[in-house]
Amino acid sequence: MAEEIVFEKVDDGNFDEFFSLVEKLAEYEKQNQLDKQVKLRLKQDALSEKPRFEAYLTKLNNRYIGYFIFFMTYSSYLALPTLYLEDIFVLEELRGKGIGQKMFQFCIQQAKEKDCGRMEWCVYNWNKPAINFYKKNIATRLNKTYYRLTREQIEDFSD
Amino acid sequence: MAEEIVFEKVDDGNFDEFFSLVEKLAEYEKQNQLDKQVKLRLKQDALSEKPRFEAYLTKLNNRYIGYFIFFMTYSSYLALPTLYLEDIFVLEELRGKGIGQKMFQFCIQQAKEKDCGRMEWCVYNWNKPAINFYKKNIATRLNKTYYRLTREQIEDFSD
Repeated sequence: MAEEIVFEKVDDGNFDEFFSLVEKLAEYEKQNQLDKQVKLRLKQDALSEKPRFEAYLTKLNNRYIGYFIFFMTYSSYLALPTLYLEDIFVLEELRGKGIGQKMFQFCIQQAKEKDCGRMEWCVYNWNKPAINFYKKNIATRLNKTYYRLTREQIEDFSD
Repeated sequence: MAEEIVFEKVDDGNFDEFFSLVEKLAEYEKQNQLDKQVKLRLKQDALSEKPRFEAYLTKLNNRYIGYFIFFMTYSSYLALPTLYLEDIFVLEELRGKGIGQKMFQFCIQQAKEKDCGRMEWCVYNWNKPAINFYKKNIATRLNKTYYRLTREQIEDFSD
């Protein structure tokens, strides 16, 4: 039997499966464990009338084995939305089979349909398999550095 | 007379002033010249009922001398929105007077009010003044690389 890959939009019915894959990516990226409040907010932000992101599950032969999340950012120079790929994840034991490639291509297709000027994403510099993956996809590596203020720094701020 | 700095939300009345400052940043960053279509789309995306970004002008003693643009991205691990600062610009002859600092602080205040989990932005690696500015602001430099597919790459894509 040929392997069948299906992309399923995250909804009420598959949300728990989605969340357990987000937990697995957090573990892979050595992030803190996700608590119950995170789960509640993530569900609300994914499934509300004004969702904060779009989330899809990847199903292989009827099993959920990956997910991806994107949202729209914006380029002022192009005056066009950018599809920003925030997370893309395949279970470790199923990598190297071209599944991530199909997920990535689905995102490019979405960027095309949504008339985006660009598609962008970031990769941790330690994540060599991901870096090789994007090299293969002829993406341009930008000469930019990413900065962050944490929640604590924001909260401590007084004008 | 003390110098007075005011932040003004971009609207129909000040849009042309805003656009001419976006053009100046594009010039500073050696981007292509912005055409009429860009101007039209930018206006629509800024001022429509569902704006794609928030834009503010900085007024010093009644003269428009800078602007900034931000929008909300999202962290799946925090399940909270991130305030992403896309552009922040002060006219070259008025730099080094703490005006950028006030604009940056206004953005942190916005991140606080919007209950964001993070504030993030990117800097071109050649932009040393900006890098020094963010060092001063104790921002965390992420060990991430930024990738892009261009509009041409997206359009050429066939599934």
